[in-house]
Amino acid sequence: MGNCLGNRCVGNKDTNVRISLPAVCFVWQIAMIILFGVFIRYNYESDTHWVEYMAQQNITSNIENDFYYRYPSFQDVHVMIFVGFGFLMTFLKRYSFGAVGFNFLVAAFGIQWALLMQGWFHSLDYTDGKIKIGIENLINADFCVAGCLIAYGAVLGKVSPVQLLVMTLFGVTLYAVEEFIILSVLHACDAGGSMVIHTFGAYYGLAISWVLYRPNLDQSKRLIGSVYHSDVFAMIGTLFLWMFWPSFNSAIAYHGDGQHRAAINTYLSLASCVLTTVAISSVTQKKGKLDMVHIQNATLAGGVAVGTAAEFLLTCYGSLIVGFCCGIISTFGYLVLTPFMEKSLKIQDTCGIHNLHAIPGFLGGVVGAITAAAATPSAYGEEGLIETFDFTGNFKNRSPNIQGGYQAAGLCVALVFGIGGDSIIILLNSPCLILKLPIWGDPADDACFDDEAYWELPEDEENIPPILEYNHNMTRKQQEV
Amino acid sequence: MGNCLGNRCVGNKDTNVRISLPAVCFVWQIAMIILFGVFIRYNYESDTHWVEYMAQQNITSNIENDFYYRYPSFQDVHVMIFVGFGFLMTFLKRYSFGAVGFNFLVAAFGIQWALLMQGWFHSLDYTDGKIKIGIENLINADFCVAGCLIAYGAVLGKVSPVQLLVMTLFGVTLYAVEEFIILSVLHACDAGGSMVIHTFGAYYGLAISWVLYRPNLDQSKRLIGSVYHSDVFAMIGTLFLWMFWPSFNSAIAYHGDGQHRAAINTYLSLASCVLTTVAISSVTQKKGKLDMVHIQNATLAGGVAVGTAAEFLLTCYGSLIVGFCCGIISTFGYLVLTPFMEKSLKIQDTCGIHNLHAIPGFLGGVVGAITAAAATPSAYGEEGLIETFDFTGNFKNRSPNIQGGYQAAGLCVALVFGIGGDSIIILLNSPCLILKLPIWGDPADDACFDDEAYWELPEDEENIPPILEYNHNMTRKQQEV
Amino acid sequence: MGNCLGNRCVGNKDTNVRISLPAVCFVWQIAMIILFGVFIRYNYESDTHWVEYMAQQNITSNIENDFYYRYPSFQDVHVMIFVGFGFLMTFLKRYSFGAVGFNFLVAAFGIQWALLMQGWFHSLDYTDGKIKIGIENLINADFCVAGCLIAYGAVLGKVSPVQLLVMTLFGVTLYAVEEFIILSVLHACDAGGSMVIHTFGAYYGLAISWVLYRPNLDQSKRLIGSVYHSDVFAMIGTLFLWMFWPSFNSAIAYHGDGQHRAAINTYLSLASCVLTTVAISSVTQKKGKLDMVHIQNATLAGGVAVGTAAEFLLTCYGSLIVGFCCGIISTFGYLVLTPFMEKSLKIQDTCGIHNLHAIPGFLGGVVGAITAAAATPSAYGEEGLIETFDFTGNFKNRSPNIQGGYQAAGLCVALVFGIGGDSIIILLNSPCLILKLPIWGDPADDACFDDEAYWELPEDEENIPPILEYNHNMTRKQQEV
Repeated sequence: MGNCLGNRCVGNKDTNVRISLPAVCFVWQIAMIILFGVFIRYNYESDTHWVEYMAQQNITSNIENDFYYRYPSFQDVHVMIFVGFGFLMTFLKRYSFGAVGFNFLVAAFGIQWALLMQGWFHSLDYTDGKIKIGIENLINADFCVAGCLIAYGAVLGKVSPVQLLVMTLFGVTLYAVEEFIILSVLHACDAGGSMVIHTFGAYYGLAISWVLYRPNLDQSKRLIGSVYHSDVFAMIGTLFLWMFWPSFNSAIAYHGDGQHRAAINTYLSLASCVLTTVAISSVTQKKGKLDMVHIQNATLAGGVAVGTAAEFLLTCYGSLIVGFCCGIISTFGYLVLTPFMEKSLKIQDTCGIHNLHAIPGFLGGVVGAITAAAATPSAYGEEGLIETFDFTGNFKNRSPNIQGGYQAAGLCVALVFGIGGDSIIILLNSPCLILKLPIWGDPADDACFDDEAYWELPEDEENIPPILEYNHNMTRKQQEV
Repeated sequence: MGNCLGNRCVGNKDTNVRISLPAVCFVWQIAMIILFGVFIRYNYESDTHWVEYMAQQNITSNIENDFYYRYPSFQDVHVMIFVGFGFLMTFLKRYSFGAVGFNFLVAAFGIQWALLMQGWFHSLDYTDGKIKIGIENLINADFCVAGCLIAYGAVLGKVSPVQLLVMTLFGVTLYAVEEFIILSVLHACDAGGSMVIHTFGAYYGLAISWVLYRPNLDQSKRLIGSVYHSDVFAMIGTLFLWMFWPSFNSAIAYHGDGQHRAAINTYLSLASCVLTTVAISSVTQKKGKLDMVHIQNATLAGGVAVGTAAEFLLTCYGSLIVGFCCGIISTFGYLVLTPFMEKSLKIQDTCGIHNLHAIPGFLGGVVGAITAAAATPSAYGEEGLIETFDFTGNFKNRSPNIQGGYQAAGLCVALVFGIGGDSIIILLNSPCLILKLPIWGDPADDACFDDEAYWELPEDEENIPPILEYNHNMTRKQQEV
Repeated sequence: MGNCLGNRCVGNKDTNVRISLPAVCFVWQIAMIILFGVFIRYNYESDTHWVEYMAQQNITSNIENDFYYRYPSFQDVHVMIFVGFGFLMTFLKRYSFGAVGFNFLVAAFGIQWALLMQGWFHSLDYTDGKIKIGIENLINADFCVAGCLIAYGAVLGKVSPVQLLVMTLFGVTLYAVEEFIILSVLHACDAGGSMVIHTFGAYYGLAISWVLYRPNLDQSKRLIGSVYHSDVFAMIGTLFLWMFWPSFNSAIAYHGDGQHRAAINTYLSLASCVLTTVAISSVTQKKGKLDMVHIQNATLAGGVAVGTAAEFLLTCYGSLIVGFCCGIISTFGYLVLTPFMEKSLKIQDTCGIHNLHAIPGFLGGVVGAITAAAATPSAYGEEGLIETFDFTGNFKNRSPNIQGGYQAAGLCVALVFGIGGDSIIILLNSPCLILKLPIWGDPADDACFDDEAYWELPEDEENIPPILEYNHNMTRKQQEV
């Protein structure tokens, strides 16, 4: 299966990754094994001593194991990462293998490195120096990888798999630091990751895209855009993201009403977002026809924008309003901002992550800060307020007003790490400059968005674009006969 | 992405929805926000006061929150609504965008309106006049939308998105009234909605299709039917519906044995249905070849038909028998009834919902009535009988026999609302007559089943049908060269 | 929809299954109904007497019903069986209907027969001679069918649906016996079925493929291989298998830490496996391009290989190591073993199940035996050790060392049943010889891998392969014009 037709021209750059890709995969996987061997252990809920632990703590039933609170949400999030993000990016006519396949590779590496990085910051057991993991760590690792996959959206089709793995290594590292500062140091809440995941991930990706700017990208113009069936494939990604977003925003929320409320708010915001996306998409086109790009992407903005506030008392109509606004803003982003950014800011954003993740994520952070600042004991109940914002331990005396300020501070941290994280690392050992080295096998400007560079393609596909030439040759052969 | 080639002829009707579609979306979404602001609040299980409520009620664990009983089923139902129904309708060769996209739009609007309509009937807190929602309301809203999406199946490809939204507005409204009468007034049981969802939804759709009868629909004949890959896409819809149907029928069943039994019965009925569908499909074709239309649709009839009785003691072999019969009946429906209805009754049923939802739904109501009437305290146990049929409060003294009668009455109500609901409204302010107004931008008879009318299509697709002509032009160009 | 173009040549064999397929479906489904009527009842957790049972046993909450422990995993497993296996096999350019459709048929029949066979061995209530089923039986039935679907992978495209049903009948029967010996008699553990499902299923399929060896299969060479979109469809299967494998391996593990740990170990092993698969796929190809065959299949080997040990204390880095090795071995299998087996051993393995299931399954059995033998009370805790390996009842005094031996014995049983099970039956009433009878309507050697034989195909598809000829004809027609 998959015969190699060999030397078809893929631009004047060498896209051979036969040494670099296997080398990176092997070295990093072996490093993971060693680090896991040294650091990672099961936590008390996934260890065989759970039975004894239950007896000690007077836990009467196995159902109290965190596994049963979070596993269904975890699987939904897992689907979003691998099928959702993967298929959402298959819309390009000839980059479906790269979209789904590299998404798969990057995520599989990223979750391992995320378990370590996040583990060191959040799950280190100081008694024995080990990271203790359970189901919540798996969800957080998936979240962390989501940030990197968002960044992948900006550079889709323009980088090699090796570059993606390097991007992911640095991305996960930055994410873990940023997350620690926002969630632990500032004690901001961000259950659905509007700030931590979306704002950071989007600006990280845009910064890289800016560094890797290709002035002659229009040489690959014939491959930008979709075909009928690739758009249908992309709808698989869109719908699984859309449907499971309530699980995304509620997966690590507090047990009980926290998870319950986060799911409801996200469900409502997303529903509202669909209608305004359709409205704007139709009203801005000649003859009122809908554009698949908007339906595939802007409909999801509502989920991004309630990420932070979903577990607060955002109120049901508040959720609808957030979705309403985000559908409008995100669709206009695709219509206006993406072309503007490419032309004026030299940022080429293949999937339009600025419209789907950056702006809604930023708005989500703002909504979260306002909702937190407006919280009152009478609305939340004394205990409810403490539980929702975790005003315990060192943060016992924090008031909702001040919490609002810290939420805003958290948003700034996410922005700074997203845009500036690269800059800091440039000074030390830049992933951006590193990514511009000629050793990575990235495609030439006229060979972007083409699976040909990194995949053995089935025979028939060789001839598909450009369609005209293909028929031309066919006809000639037949005339020779 | 998605260049508009502009003026390709799409019949002699104006399908421009540039004003009407955005207007309807905006007005309705704003109305939703206002109504949600006035009426909708979190219920006690999704509110921050849950902690205090637990203490009052001596609930010892967060896991007792209804969220954990129902959330996994809810997500499965959500997948059925958006991916299941959406992809099931992608089988047409050139209407995949419309199938998935309008399904998405209609469902996103419908769930909001359903939360309100169903809320007023079922979840109104009379102490403060607010609707209190939790996870069960979200499931019920999805169910309600399922009824409208079934109706969409009958008119697929023949209506504009604006018409669909109007259909959904009236459909949800009728559904909520009908559901209230069946479940609350008659106190019939219908956990999986054989009557409430499927019978009602199917006849509602068929009635609309009858009103919108197009005598010259064969002008679009070239676009009726599938291509190879569109049939594979449709199988995604079929399988997600099939696999998650046990969740559909058990999602709002009673905690414990009720949900457990509903899942088992549905699983068995569906399995049985597949075999008889294959058998009839093969035996009725020359050379015994299978027809994808049957495999995609009739295999699901078993799930429809155990909707009412799934939570009763239908017995395992009873479930198999129901599936056995429905596979046969539904496949024959596709072979015999659909052509008959189009020819003689002037009902054009694009997806054959009469065979998949109407007949099996009706049978499901009958099976439910019989199973209920045959219930005995010795089989169910005293307490089991009371719990299963909820013989409490006003219905404390109802016997199973009488319950069977009320089940049958419920079925009649569903039929009446499905078929006649339209008629009543015609008298007042008909959705059917309304739908015939020339303002909705519906396609001409020779432009049905074509995404061209409402979607910006990728360039290459313009040329696909008819295939012959396409190659013709190509060859000419080449000869000129 | 789906017009039949009739007599296009599909080889010199008669593939008409118009009598045999419906006959088998009807007879078997009726048999199922009768046997279910005689034998199958709800168990105490899915029966209406559950309320009374709770009171008797002092169970305080419905959430203790096994349904809530296992239903989310069950649904994930269900998706793996129907969408995962079904779509994984759609990679062939013209056998997508057969892949998804026959997978659907076989699984729907298999789960019914499995409920009976496994029920007689494991869930028979001796007080009344009935099989009592609940959610765990449904999962086990899905598992059993997985074994048969693995076997289908070896003969994909070369057999008729009737042959598949016969294969499944015998496969499920053998599976149930083998499972009883391994799990009950030997008391080996195999929660994820490395031995019971994968090793058995793969060798069962390979043995049948050997019996049905077609020396002239290269006459269908034009249809072996994929097209661009069929590879993307296959990735749907791959990803749903990959994502839900943690549910597969944890679905019937012990409540609490058992399920929790099984999910974590599988997640890690699979992630590791992706990286080494990519590495080997790239390093072994000219120019380092990735091969979709490897990405679609070998990435899953890590899940197969931790099936047995996932619920033990395999350790997190142990899981990574298992995945690491299996990615390498499985990919080399596709590169080296599959061609070798076809040439030298006369085993034609369409999907390469030897590399994805047989070898990793075997390794999984070995890993399980070693991990079990190495278990100590200090690592597991006294109670944890007893619970993990179920050292209760007759097996109270078994030590981990001895358990390791029994695990190895279990692996041998799986092998023997997989390869030799056929042989035994050959002596009695062979499914293999039976399968060679001319009555089943299997395709001729030059008509394999072609949906044409058993499916009504949409018109346009008739012309697709071979592409050259198609254009040729087109041009001629046009020249005549």
